[in-house]
Amino acid sequence: MRLWGVMGLILGGSVEASLNRKTRPNIIYMLMDDMGWGDLGVNGNLHRETPNIDELARSGVVFTDFYSAAPLCSPSRASLLTGRLPVRNGFYTDNAKMRNGYTPQNIVGGIADEEILLSELLQKSGYRTGLVGKWHLGHREQYLPLKHGFDYWFGAPNCHFGPYDDKHTPNIPVFENEDMIGRYYEEIPIDRNRGRSNFTNNLRDKAFEFIQKSVDDQQPFFLFFTPDSSHAPVYSSLAFAGQSRRGKIGEAIMELDWTVGNIMELVKSLGIIEETIIVFSSDNGGACVGPVEQCGSNGPLLCCKQTTFDGGMRVPGILSWPGTVEPNQVNNDVSGLMDLFTTGLHLAGVPVPEDRIIDGKNLLDLVKLKNHRKPRDSTTGTHFFYRGDTLGAVRHGDYKMHVYTWSGATTSSQWHFCRGQNVPNVTTEAQTDHSMAPVIYNIGQDPSEKLPLPVKSAEYQQQRPIIEKIIAEHQKSLVLGKPQLNYCDDSVMHWAPPGCEKLGKCLPIPPSNYAKCYWDH
Amino acid sequence: MRLWGVMGLILGGSVEASLNRKTRPNIIYMLMDDMGWGDLGVNGNLHRETPNIDELARSGVVFTDFYSAAPLCSPSRASLLTGRLPVRNGFYTDNAKMRNGYTPQNIVGGIADEEILLSELLQKSGYRTGLVGKWHLGHREQYLPLKHGFDYWFGAPNCHFGPYDDKHTPNIPVFENEDMIGRYYEEIPIDRNRGRSNFTNNLRDKAFEFIQKSVDDQQPFFLFFTPDSSHAPVYSSLAFAGQSRRGKIGEAIMELDWTVGNIMELVKSLGIIEETIIVFSSDNGGACVGPVEQCGSNGPLLCCKQTTFDGGMRVPGILSWPGTVEPNQVNNDVSGLMDLFTTGLHLAGVPVPEDRIIDGKNLLDLVKLKNHRKPRDSTTGTHFFYRGDTLGAVRHGDYKMHVYTWSGATTSSQWHFCRGQNVPNVTTEAQTDHSMAPVIYNIGQDPSEKLPLPVKSAEYQQQRPIIEKIIAEHQKSLVLGKPQLNYCDDSVMHWAPPGCEKLGKCLPIPPSNYAKCYWDH
Repeated sequence: MRLWGVMGLILGGSVEASLNRKTRPNIIYMLMDDMGWGDLGVNGNLHRETPNIDELARSGVVFTDFYSAAPLCSPSRASLLTGRLPVRNGFYTDNAKMRNGYTPQNIVGGIADEEILLSELLQKSGYRTGLVGKWHLGHREQYLPLKHGFDYWFGAPNCHFGPYDDKHTPNIPVFENEDMIGRYYEEIPIDRNRGRSNFTNNLRDKAFEFIQKSVDDQQPFFLFFTPDSSHAPVYSSLAFAGQSRRGKIGEAIMELDWTVGNIMELVKSLGIIEETIIVFSSDNGGACVGPVEQCGSNGPLLCCKQTTFDGGMRVPGILSWPGTVEPNQVNNDVSGLMDLFTTGLHLAGVPVPEDRIIDGKNLLDLVKLKNHRKPRDSTTGTHFFYRGDTLGAVRHGDYKMHVYTWSGATTSSQWHFCRGQNVPNVTTEAQTDHSMAPVIYNIGQDPSEKLPLPVKSAEYQQQRPIIEKIIAEHQKSLVLGKPQLNYCDDSVMHWAPPGCEKLGKCLPIPPSNYAKCYWDH
Repeated sequence: MRLWGVMGLILGGSVEASLNRKTRPNIIYMLMDDMGWGDLGVNGNLHRETPNIDELARSGVVFTDFYSAAPLCSPSRASLLTGRLPVRNGFYTDNAKMRNGYTPQNIVGGIADEEILLSELLQKSGYRTGLVGKWHLGHREQYLPLKHGFDYWFGAPNCHFGPYDDKHTPNIPVFENEDMIGRYYEEIPIDRNRGRSNFTNNLRDKAFEFIQKSVDDQQPFFLFFTPDSSHAPVYSSLAFAGQSRRGKIGEAIMELDWTVGNIMELVKSLGIIEETIIVFSSDNGGACVGPVEQCGSNGPLLCCKQTTFDGGMRVPGILSWPGTVEPNQVNNDVSGLMDLFTTGLHLAGVPVPEDRIIDGKNLLDLVKLKNHRKPRDSTTGTHFFYRGDTLGAVRHGDYKMHVYTWSGATTSSQWHFCRGQNVPNVTTEAQTDHSMAPVIYNIGQDPSEKLPLPVKSAEYQQQRPIIEKIIAEHQKSLVLGKPQLNYCDDSVMHWAPPGCEKLGKCLPIPPSNYAKCYWDH
C-alpha cells in the first residue's frame, strides 16, 4: 500500500486516458493446463461445452493469434511471469537438442532469483498477490511461490501425476502458503480410472476466499489461477460425470468452464467487475498422446503440445475488462503469454524493467477501449517458437518460417505429437534442419500449416530474407540464461516438504544421485 | 392470401403456443455456396472475418451438427427444397458408382414435377416466394424456378463458370423472372483474374426490393437467398479488395458477411424482425482443389466438398428468430438442410406431405423458445451420407459408420478431395467397400475422423449392429427416384434462353448429342 502515493508519477504509456478512476485494477489471470485452442466453443469446438468462457470472450477481446512461449508447461509459465523467452529466463535444457524440459519432482533447478517476476513487481507496488493452482517453476524451497512475490498460495508445485509408492517416488504435496497440507492420492483424492477429483472445487473455494479477503481489505489484487485438471490424468468432480460428448477431457473442461463462470459471478456480485481485468489462456496446446479421452483439441491447427507447430503453441487468448475494454472484439495481432507480464505492469502503473530484454508487449495497446482510442496498427508482430534450446520457427505478420522441425521422439513412437496428421517434410519424425531451405507458410491463407509455399514462388522469395534477418538480429542480441532444467536428483523429490512434520507425512530422504536429466523428446 | 382463413385449422405440431401473434412469419433462408463449416468466426475461423454472421448466430441458435444432404450443390439444394434425400428426389446419377452428379448446362434433367417443393407449398398457402441467386435444379424451361413455386427470381440457373466462347459453349444467362437479362462475363462482368464482380451487390439489391415489396403488400414472404460468390472462381466487389488475410476467398466471404448484415439491418429497420425467421447455411463443405485462395475452410473436419467425410457435408447451421427463439443457443442434435423443408411448412402452418417419405424434421422442436417449452430430447438423430447413388456413411447419435469411402477420382490427381490429410484405410484414393468391416468413429470424442475405433473394442461391437440395423431398415424403405443426372446434351445448353430475342442474345442451337453424362468423381 505504501507505494500508492507515487503511482501517479510512474503511470506511463498510452492507457492513462482510459484508466481514469480505474487505475490499478484487480488482475485475474486464469491459465489452464494443456487446454487446446480448439477446446473452447468460442474457438469453434464442435460441441460448444464452454458457455461461461464463451461469455467471457464476448464480454471483451478474443486474441486469435495468441501464442505460448513454449510448447510445454514449466517454461511457458516461467515466460508468462517473467515476460521473457525460456532461453532467456533459463527454463530450458541443453542436455540434448530441442528437448522439452520441465520441472518434474526430481528437478534440481527452478526460477532464478535474478529473474524479475510479475508477482514480485505487483507485490512491491502494493497488490495482494495470490497463486491458486499449479506452480511448476521449481519446488525446492528457494523456488516456491512465496519466495517469488506471492502473498498467498494454494496448490501444488508439480503436476498431479501419480499415485506413487512413497518408496521410489513420493506423492506430490499440496501446499497452503509455506506448508504442505497433504498429498495427491492421499489427503487429496484423485481417482485416475474414473477421472474423478474434487480438487478443482477446492481451488475455486480458495480463489473465492482470496478475492473476498482482498476486497474486504480494499487492496488491489493479482490472482494467478492455474487449475490443472485438464492435464492428463484429467479429472472432474462427480457432478460432471457423463455430461460431455467428449468423455473425461470434456468433463474436466466443463468443470473448468463452470468454475470460470463462478468466478465471473463472484466478481459481479462483489461489484468489482469494472475494476477487474480477467485474462484467460492456456500454457500450451492440447496434448494428443494416449487415449482420446485424455486429449485436448487444437481445432484446425497442426499437431499438439510439445511441438513448434501452431497446435503446440497457439492457445486461447481472452481478455475482459467491462467498462474499459469494448466487448465483442477480435484481435488478429501476433500476441501471447509473455505479453501478460508487460500488460500487468502497465495496469499497475509499474515501469517495465529496462536492464534486460523483455519480450512481452502491452496487450491494451492493441485493443479498442471505451474512449475510442484507435488501437495501435500492429499487423507485423513477431513470435519465436522454441523447443528447449532450439529455435524451430518464427512467425512474422502472416508468415511462419520453420527452420528446424520434429514431431516425434527418438526412442518411442508413443511420443508422436502429430497423431493422425502427416505433412511431408514438415511433421518430421526425425529432427530436421531446414535452415538451408526453410519451410514457409502463409498463415493467413493456410493456418493449418498444410501447404508450404513453393520455394520458387515470389511470396516465398520475398518472405525468406525478411524473416532470416529477424532471426539473425534476434540471435545477435540473445543472451542465454543459465539452463535450469539440466540436472535431476532423486533426493530433491518431495520426501519431506515444508510442513510434513506437523502432519507426520515426512518420508526418508534417499541419497543424492545428482546427474544430467534425461529428456527423450 | 386466400388460404389465410383456414390456417387456424391446419396449424399443427408443438409450436402453436409460442407462435401466438407470430404465426406465419416471414422466412429467409440464406444458402451460401461451398462455404465451409470453418469459414465463420462463430465456428472458430482463425481470422474471424464474419462479424455479421457471428452476430446472427448469437441472436439465435447455432446447430453444430448440421449436415447437407449431399456433398455437392445441385443435389443438396434439391434436398433442401424437397426435404428428401437425393436418391429419393432424383438428384443423382447411376451412370457410375458414387459419382457427384450436378446440373451443368448440358444436363438434360432437372427437378421432377412429381416432387413437392417448399416454394410450391408456401406459395399455395399465401406466401410471396422469391429466389434471389443460383437455382441449380435444372435449367430447361420446365425446370426453372417460376415453374416450381417461386413468384420471383433474380439470378442464374447454373454456377458462374466461364468465360465461354459462345461457339462450343455459351455463357450462363442471368434471369429476372421468366426472361434472361444478360450473361455472365458479358452484361454481368466477372474478372476471374482479380476475383472481382459486383454481382453480390446486385443480388442484395434485388433481395432488398423483394423484402420491401412484400412488406408494402403486407404479404408474408419466403426469400431463398443463394449468392454463389464463394464458389470458385470466387469474387467480390472492389470494396473488399485486400481486406482479408485469406486472399480472394476471404474477400468473397467478407462481402457475403456484409450482405447478411445489410439484410439483417433492413429487416430491423422495417420493424419485422420479430416476424421473420432467418436461417443461414451452405450447400456443402468448403472446396479444397486448386489455389488456396479459391478454397474454403472446413475447420477441424476431415476432407472437403465432394466427399462423405464431415468436411464434405457438415455445414454452418444458424437459426434466428428474435422474440420467439431464445438467443445464444447451441444445439448438438444431428440436423441439416432437409429439415428446412419441414421447418418452413410448420412455420407456415402447412401440413407435411404424407404420400411420400420426408427426411426432414422441424428444427423448432429442438430449440428453446421464449415460452420456455422444453426442447425435444433428441440426441440420437440419424443422417445418411450419400455420394451419388452410393451410401458412404451413416451418422447416428455420436457415432459415424463408414461403409464405402473415396477421397479422390479415378482419372486425375487434380481431384483429390483430402489434400494434406491422410487417414489410412479411410481417405482412400480408390473406391473402397468397408461393409464387411465398417470404419466407426465416435464423433463426440473424435469429430475430425482421425482415429477409427478398434474393431475389437466394446464400443465398436456395440455400435456396429445398431447402425447396420438402421441401414437395413433405410434400404428396405427406399424407393429410388428416377435419376435426373444421367443424360447430357450440348443442344440443351444456354444457346437461346427465354428472353434472348428481346436482347438480341440468341445463339444458334447445335444438333443434339444426347448421351450419358461422364462423371469422373
